[in-house]
Amino acid sequence: MPLVVVGSVALDSVETPTDSRANVLGGSAVFFSYAASYFTGVNLVGVVGEDWPDEHTRLLNDRRIDTSGLHVIPGGETFRWRGKYLPNMNDRETLEVHLNVFEEFDPVLPEEYRRGKFLFLANGSPVVQMKVLDQMVAPTLTVADTMDLWIEMQHDELMQLFQRVDGLVLNDAEAKMLTDDENLVRAGHAIRRMGPKFVVIKKGEHGAMFFSEHETYVMPAYPTPDVIDPTGAGDSFAGGMMGYLAEKDTFDPVTLKEAMAYGTLVASFTVEDFSLDRMKNIRREDVDRRMEDYRRMLSF
Amino acid sequence: MPLVVVGSVALDSVETPTDSRANVLGGSAVFFSYAASYFTGVNLVGVVGEDWPDEHTRLLNDRRIDTSGLHVIPGGETFRWRGKYLPNMNDRETLEVHLNVFEEFDPVLPEEYRRGKFLFLANGSPVVQMKVLDQMVAPTLTVADTMDLWIEMQHDELMQLFQRVDGLVLNDAEAKMLTDDENLVRAGHAIRRMGPKFVVIKKGEHGAMFFSEHETYVMPAYPTPDVIDPTGAGDSFAGGMMGYLAEKDTFDPVTLKEAMAYGTLVASFTVEDFSLDRMKNIRREDVDRRMEDYRRMLSF
Repeated sequence: MPLVVVGSVALDSVETPTDSRANVLGGSAVFFSYAASYFTGVNLVGVVGEDWPDEHTRLLNDRRIDTSGLHVIPGGETFRWRGKYLPNMNDRETLEVHLNVFEEFDPVLPEEYRRGKFLFLANGSPVVQMKVLDQMVAPTLTVADTMDLWIEMQHDELMQLFQRVDGLVLNDAEAKMLTDDENLVRAGHAIRRMGPKFVVIKKGEHGAMFFSEHETYVMPAYPTPDVIDPTGAGDSFAGGMMGYLAEKDTFDPVTLKEAMAYGTLVASFTVEDFSLDRMKNIRREDVDRRMEDYRRMLSF
Repeated sequence: MPLVVVGSVALDSVETPTDSRANVLGGSAVFFSYAASYFTGVNLVGVVGEDWPDEHTRLLNDRRIDTSGLHVIPGGETFRWRGKYLPNMNDRETLEVHLNVFEEFDPVLPEEYRRGKFLFLANGSPVVQMKVLDQMVAPTLTVADTMDLWIEMQHDELMQLFQRVDGLVLNDAEAKMLTDDENLVRAGHAIRRMGPKFVVIKKGEHGAMFFSEHETYVMPAYPTPDVIDPTGAGDSFAGGMMGYLAEKDTFDPVTLKEAMAYGTLVASFTVEDFSLDRMKNIRREDVDRRMEDYRRMLSF
């Protein structure tokens, strides 16, 4: 069951306390797609400039990621982000952002994408996210991500979006900002009452929390000693989660919980190297092997 | 199997963003004992002044906590701590500390305590902790807590202590300080290699991590929406953990993991009110009921 994702496609420059990379493949829709591709085919919608290296497209196509929705703007430049991680590897500073072609991103979905059943609205303004929703015929599961910028700048539009999605994924700082509540358990349920049927709060190295009307649970992150670059962890989490749901073609509570675990584990691989480097070198079997270990870890 | 605990006994004054309490029952050995008393009898070693209200002793005695090791110093004053929690309820500021009689605490264990099999060395200098160890005949499981002050001021003595304990419990900030490593997975194992056979890193609202030669695992905190006062959560965690081990009279890996879960749950009750107020109103059945819920939460 192919999965549609709409979001940013970027070239990232990342500094960590011990290493750095310049202009490597990044962006929310890229991390999401690659993470989801362990489980299902993905239809990616995004925009890049003429500077976009073809090899990146080939890399995505090699993993059952359809890029016919990736628009190349002649004469344009790809979205670029430059950031630096603090020694704790959880907090980061954005040093430069050049939205470039992403600034005017007005996604037009290829005809064959519009009948998709599973849709993920990654990083983007709620206005753009709703434009995507308008083009979909009848998605059965729509999940959106959001960020501090939209909470501050487009609050009303975000509230409209919340009425139209099934699930929302956001990080802990954003959940606190949106609810003005420092307790994540209360915050999660408060956001759920704003519209989405379920809410996932990502806590970085501390895992993720799930909230629906009848369920509240926490999944710890997989304890990896090798955190090289956390960029894309949250999008990989969402990709693993949505990819698994699309593979199973259902989103009942039991499958959703398994999907949360898969998201957690794919993200734990992503942080073990820069860009997609670690994910490139693993297969579904590696994810499943880590899953066995994770299940054992949580059993007592 | 009674459990021996040596640590601070205090009168706490606590301010939270919404409420406050003055001179309420506190101290590491108190939270520990009360938490452990759901599972086993406890022999408490500590020191208080003449200002110590008898009702506090009665409260402890009512829960199979033996206080014949609680010394009252004539003319002395009890250890007092005053602190204030920041809005996130995780960080706190110490406003006043009066060590009073705790400053000269030189624990002398009652004869019948010395044959105890399970020993917890709560908050105290490693020098004092080792003096306690010298008095014990042949404990089968010794676990110590430590804090930033001793990591900074008595590093050599702390390293000596590490050679003599089976387990060490400390919080995330202390683990990072002790190892100069921001990655808790690496930090946990590095501390284990300093001596203790196992290490537990407490992460507050994010749960706890366990490290032994063959095991690494994380347990999330129980997601309670009612965080009123986090004081004593870490000591309650240790009390629940050690209490369960003493009850089972073993500390094989399977029992240790169950004990970590019990510690997590008792701590989740402690934070739901000031001082011991929430713990006073629950019974073992309440802990077991939450355990069922917790197990369900972690199963998928």
